[in-house]
Amino acid sequence: MISERKIWKEKFGEWFRKVIAEAGILDYRYPIKGCGVWLPYGFKLRRNILGIIRKLLDESGHEEMLFPLLIPEDLFARESMHIKGFEEEAYWVTHGGSTKLSVKMALRPTSETVITPMAKLWIRSHADLPLKIYQIASIFRYETKATKPLIRVREVTTFKEAHTFHASHEDALKQVREAIKIYKKFFDEIGIPYIVSQRPEWDKFAGAVSSYAFDTVLPDGRTLQIGTVHDLGQSFAKAFDLTFETTIGGREHVWQTSYGISERGIAAVLILHGDDHGLVLPPNIAPIQVIIIPIPYKDMEELVNEAGKKVENELKEGGVRVKLDVRSDITPGSKFYEWEMRGVPLRIEVGPRDIKERKVTFVRRDNFEKLSCEESELVEKTKSLLADTRENLRKRAGEWLNLHICKAKSLDEAKKLIDSDFGIVQVPWCGKKECGLEIERGVNARVLGVPSAKEKVAGNCVVCSQKGEFLVRLAQAY
Amino acid sequence: MISERKIWKEKFGEWFRKVIAEAGILDYRYPIKGCGVWLPYGFKLRRNILGIIRKLLDESGHEEMLFPLLIPEDLFARESMHIKGFEEEAYWVTHGGSTKLSVKMALRPTSETVITPMAKLWIRSHADLPLKIYQIASIFRYETKATKPLIRVREVTTFKEAHTFHASHEDALKQVREAIKIYKKFFDEIGIPYIVSQRPEWDKFAGAVSSYAFDTVLPDGRTLQIGTVHDLGQSFAKAFDLTFETTIGGREHVWQTSYGISERGIAAVLILHGDDHGLVLPPNIAPIQVIIIPIPYKDMEELVNEAGKKVENELKEGGVRVKLDVRSDITPGSKFYEWEMRGVPLRIEVGPRDIKERKVTFVRRDNFEKLSCEESELVEKTKSLLADTRENLRKRAGEWLNLHICKAKSLDEAKKLIDSDFGIVQVPWCGKKECGLEIERGVNARVLGVPSAKEKVAGNCVVCSQKGEFLVRLAQAY
Repeated sequence: MISERKIWKEKFGEWFRKVIAEAGILDYRYPIKGCGVWLPYGFKLRRNILGIIRKLLDESGHEEMLFPLLIPEDLFARESMHIKGFEEEAYWVTHGGSTKLSVKMALRPTSETVITPMAKLWIRSHADLPLKIYQIASIFRYETKATKPLIRVREVTTFKEAHTFHASHEDALKQVREAIKIYKKFFDEIGIPYIVSQRPEWDKFAGAVSSYAFDTVLPDGRTLQIGTVHDLGQSFAKAFDLTFETTIGGREHVWQTSYGISERGIAAVLILHGDDHGLVLPPNIAPIQVIIIPIPYKDMEELVNEAGKKVENELKEGGVRVKLDVRSDITPGSKFYEWEMRGVPLRIEVGPRDIKERKVTFVRRDNFEKLSCEESELVEKTKSLLADTRENLRKRAGEWLNLHICKAKSLDEAKKLIDSDFGIVQVPWCGKKECGLEIERGVNARVLGVPSAKEKVAGNCVVCSQKGEFLVRLAQAY
Repeated sequence: MISERKIWKEKFGEWFRKVIAEAGILDYRYPIKGCGVWLPYGFKLRRNILGIIRKLLDESGHEEMLFPLLIPEDLFARESMHIKGFEEEAYWVTHGGSTKLSVKMALRPTSETVITPMAKLWIRSHADLPLKIYQIASIFRYETKATKPLIRVREVTTFKEAHTFHASHEDALKQVREAIKIYKKFFDEIGIPYIVSQRPEWDKFAGAVSSYAFDTVLPDGRTLQIGTVHDLGQSFAKAFDLTFETTIGGREHVWQTSYGISERGIAAVLILHGDDHGLVLPPNIAPIQVIIIPIPYKDMEELVNEAGKKVENELKEGGVRVKLDVRSDITPGSKFYEWEMRGVPLRIEVGPRDIKERKVTFVRRDNFEKLSCEESELVEKTKSLLADTRENLRKRAGEWLNLHICKAKSLDEAKKLIDSDFGIVQVPWCGKKECGLEIERGVNARVLGVPSAKEKVAGNCVVCSQKGEFLVRLAQAY
């Protein structure tokens, strides 16, 4: 499978820009760099993907809410590490009309400093804990690096951030594990492979005790962080003096976590499943699952359109998201091109022979396999092909990631692999910060972090040669 | 019905602030004035209401999209009337981190100047028209007047704005009529009565040729604008040079409309259906349609809870949004109070006698009527009571509005009525601007506008005594 996507891999940046525009996902020609417009087809895909994460969060006891965008400077600056990490990334509102505001306000780059002071109004005792909430909203980051559609933008239009509050560190850590589990389910649902790493001390979320991240590998060998989970300890609770009455009557600071995913998850779907012909959308999130294209022969236009209509109705009744393309001003070939570009997982062609033989002809988008079935098996066959497509996409994306994670024994070897755009390279590391930074410098790449504790392995640190406690993951990262 | 809500009417401002907080709709204690937090229950209500408008727009050929929040100053200032109307209302982003931006950016107060330049990239010829799109997003207004929950806020979190593009003024005017029809359906669905007026020349949307508005009357006699529809003519098309190739090959500027509703529609639902006990939510948008409260007697707690569970399951299977309140630490009376406050349209009480007699006891939220039915009729009876409740709410809100619209023959009479918080007062008007402004000054109220053309009536203008062409509507307006 992978080899078929070779051309696409080599020029993937160009491919991505072209495809999201041509497929009607986003238009980035808005005059502010890093701000795009969700087009109708893209908006529907986004809605379907958000439906999956909403369901997972609702089912696990999270409540959806909506918080203000603007953060007064004094609130935003309350937690010292947080403001240090975010102050150069925030956009500032300084004027209302021509009036200078007495307190300037940041556009939220994340909402810890919005939500913690509100939680302080809601949490009084242990009986109010745990509190698990989330919102889906736009966040803003003043990006000075080159922007890239959905990956490095200034308005992140699709940020899902969850915030939880707990009576003990233990309970918060349990929540961190639940969050990782929820995100695993989410990425599995949309067929995106991932590796979960605990980020190194020097690359944690600003204000966190520890940060865990989901990374995947893009066709150019660079990793994309697609989700993060943070144990916030009591940092924000202390900064905002958020306390609760314990079961024995004292007061203690609340323990917090936060975890977020963004439109980078959508980018991963578009990029990792796509091919030279355009997008290939997993059927469970595709706005259109089946496109029906009548193949007209002279004097038979009406007949094939009617047969197409019949197929459409039957699939609709079967609960399939289906569209019949009856445009008469373009050829079936052009329609093939357009719907392949847009990633519709299954095409049905309806021609005179199909009608005569009472057959249905399918073409799968993922592997272009042509198949047919009896008319009577239409709905059943469609569903099984959609299920197969989904599984195949998940599998081939998973294989892609596996092929791009390896181990190296020395810094030199690691550097060579990373320079050749291999993907994620792992080397033994003693766990000390100075060696970690030395590794980063040595390979000119980023330390993604280490696997969870139980995967600890032996090996000599590539810097200090002491016994390594971890295999640390390195990559060129977006 | 109305008289039962007397106390509530007299102190409605206070009532509103208390109820939205206690009922778990919004929390306005955020440190920026006019910015609130949607709480879980309120968020679900908002989602249900948005579901109705989305359906109406999708079914009438509108496509949902999402546009950037930030507007570069030069774009925002392109249409001269528009910037004149909005420049003092806009929040300005001037810095990214500590860097001063070369072009300052407004937070959208509305999106004509965001969408028109994008439409210019999409529209080439008459074949691309009409184009009908919408988005649901936050908008920002630098309000200097006193803020009021959902009614006068700085972050309008729930703004639905539609924008349409047409090949002729005639087609745009047809769209204005369709938009009015869609909004009528929407407000009918949520049981909110309205009066539609064409706003006077001096109170149009900044940049519009003409503006139509939906107003309703609040308990304090003041009107609330809950929806607007604008014929934008070619104002924005000319400012942005948005043209299309006509059928005969020439180029012409596109004709536009825009129409919006906001969270003021939600405010109207909360205020107009509410009573002294709190909210009364129309069943079709209520997050919880039926609350089941077990009435425990000594040693029968388990029995009533089990019977409640049975009722809950049956209603769930019947497609009813139902909740069983089994909390054991509070009394049934406290539960009644809480769910009445939250506006759940129907209560089912399950006690030993109901179980014994195989009956179900209902209490309606809208009129506190107590009813019962056989166990076997549960689902059917519930649905018919919910339907009755919905119809009753719609009807009584409609009666309220009708009782607060009247005619006056002179400015004096009009002023007296308006000063007594009557509601909307209509007087004959010749149609000339100077007389209109004189009327506004004379009654110290706002001219809402005139009915649509076919309702024109005769009468002598209350200012110049010339034959009046219209009955003009006056009110204290929010």
